[in-house]
Amino acid sequence: MSSQGQNTGRRPELRHDPVANRWVIFSPARAKRPSDFKSKSPENSNPGDNSSCPFCIGNEHECAPEIFRVPSDPNWKLRVIENLYPALSRNIEGPCEEKEDMGVPARAIGGFGFHDVVIENPVHSVHLCDMEARDIGQVLLAYKKRIQQIASVESIKYVQVFKNHGASAGASMSHSHSQLLALPIIPSAVSARFEGMNEYFKKTGKCSLCEVQAKELLIDESTHFISIVPFAATYPFEMWIIPRAHSSHFHEFDCDKMVELGGLLKLMLRKMSLQLNNPPFNFMIQTSPLQVKESELSLCSLVFTDSTSVEWRRGI
Amino acid sequence: MSSQGQNTGRRPELRHDPVANRWVIFSPARAKRPSDFKSKSPENSNPGDNSSCPFCIGNEHECAPEIFRVPSDPNWKLRVIENLYPALSRNIEGPCEEKEDMGVPARAIGGFGFHDVVIENPVHSVHLCDMEARDIGQVLLAYKKRIQQIASVESIKYVQVFKNHGASAGASMSHSHSQLLALPIIPSAVSARFEGMNEYFKKTGKCSLCEVQAKELLIDESTHFISIVPFAATYPFEMWIIPRAHSSHFHEFDCDKMVELGGLLKLMLRKMSLQLNNPPFNFMIQTSPLQVKESELSLCSLVFTDSTSVEWRRGI
Repeated sequence: MSSQGQNTGRRPELRHDPVANRWVIFSPARAKRPSDFKSKSPENSNPGDNSSCPFCIGNEHECAPEIFRVPSDPNWKLRVIENLYPALSRNIEGPCEEKEDMGVPARAIGGFGFHDVVIENPVHSVHLCDMEARDIGQVLLAYKKRIQQIASVESIKYVQVFKNHGASAGASMSHSHSQLLALPIIPSAVSARFEGMNEYFKKTGKCSLCEVQAKELLIDESTHFISIVPFAATYPFEMWIIPRAHSSHFHEFDCDKMVELGGLLKLMLRKMSLQLNNPPFNFMIQTSPLQVKESELSLCSLVFTDSTSVEWRRGI
Repeated sequence: MSSQGQNTGRRPELRHDPVANRWVIFSPARAKRPSDFKSKSPENSNPGDNSSCPFCIGNEHECAPEIFRVPSDPNWKLRVIENLYPALSRNIEGPCEEKEDMGVPARAIGGFGFHDVVIENPVHSVHLCDMEARDIGQVLLAYKKRIQQIASVESIKYVQVFKNHGASAGASMSHSHSQLLALPIIPSAVSARFEGMNEYFKKTGKCSLCEVQAKELLIDESTHFISIVPFAATYPFEMWIIPRAHSSHFHEFDCDKMVELGGLLKLMLRKMSLQLNNPPFNFMIQTSPLQVKESELSLCSLVFTDSTSVEWRRGI
């Protein structure tokens, strides 16, 4: 992949908090990112307004380097590009410094990683929920392809896929997009879920995600997935999509399942947009850490079921 | 204590998330709380405007029942009252239902607990940072007294003291106040810190809070406390106040130390208010769970040092 970020000043790093026992990303480049929310009034967010948005078709030269596009011709339907203001840098040489010395975490490590953007649609005003189910499936397949590419980099431990929709949900660009953040550590929230499910299995002999499926409020279902409102939701209007069968990694779903998942995701996004008047929201794909092997998972017997969690907040 | 909340409709409950292995509070009453931020424009937030604020001196009858005041006469300097819209209910009889059955967490338990408000000053426009150091010390002593009262209730496991300043930091009332939330569970963030510090000690033989003290950016210091910017801060302008000596529980500081701590807290609040133009912020008091005994703490050798963490966010 080509490089960018020469203008980012100080390099990003990960710092260890020995009290909470977690890593925090420090990224000077992120402070420089622009926002089009302040300057853009709703009336010039019409379909034809792609004059100033770098994510619009025709403005590819204003973006950071492209990683791939689908299809691979000028009339693309989606593009995966580098983030011009990355939280982590792909330009730090080799694997990051040792994270532990005699079991003691390092105070800081280099901020090596990948931070990519998926432009979900070439047209400025088209939201993800407006797209056809098969095109949303193509977005999910783009996540899969990019995760597979990154999985070959040994020092990457986890790839977090997420979407921020609306300024108060953290989006800085209004053109529909999502992000992949490939990290050299396992985030503490992921470890906590991993350990929580493991502990639940040890105590009960049951997979906690299967327990969730059996008991929660069902929204909709398809052949291989169900969507639910979790009993112990953390946010208002939180929803999860969970695969019916145990599976450890999101990027191992085949093409047919991704298109099916795209259909269920579209339905949930439509319900939310119509019922709540296009609210700001976040979604995150919850998956297992990259180096966790199926054989390790089977030791704790099917606990590490993959879930696609769609959650959103109405402002703060 | 007297009761209130007859008008709260459904009772609060804590629901267990078996995936993240944590408890979430569901509180129908909280949805009904009012806000004075929307209707009050800055110009009528002057010192004399106490006509519509229930926290102002003279409007005590508009509040939920009082727990105590200091001093105990009509010219009070601070009051501790029940929260009119409590997240947890003191009116659920006896200890909450069993939280575990054969090691398996219950799906939900009754939302028994205490949710109190500390009105820090009788005058509407006086912020905490405007008060004399000794008066801020009195606020800290009110936290101590109330925690000591609550500590006698066996089913309460943790008391979280926190302050939200400004609407975007979560405050619904502009009159300077803070809150105590006494919980029948230990919050997952507290468990994570507890386990994180324990793990650090096992690996290094050192207290991670002492490590923090030795290495971080010093803001100020007093006889028994220091204030720092933590190396791995999670929020912009995050600050911590840490006691120099190991101590497990905030409420065990004596009167002199509380007044000293009040002075250091005032200085930090003033710096923040002046440099950042009265930003919205949160502070939280980080302490050990109530039932953790000193003898247990010494087993993991002084790891569970108490800290007063002052952190704030500039909006979201």
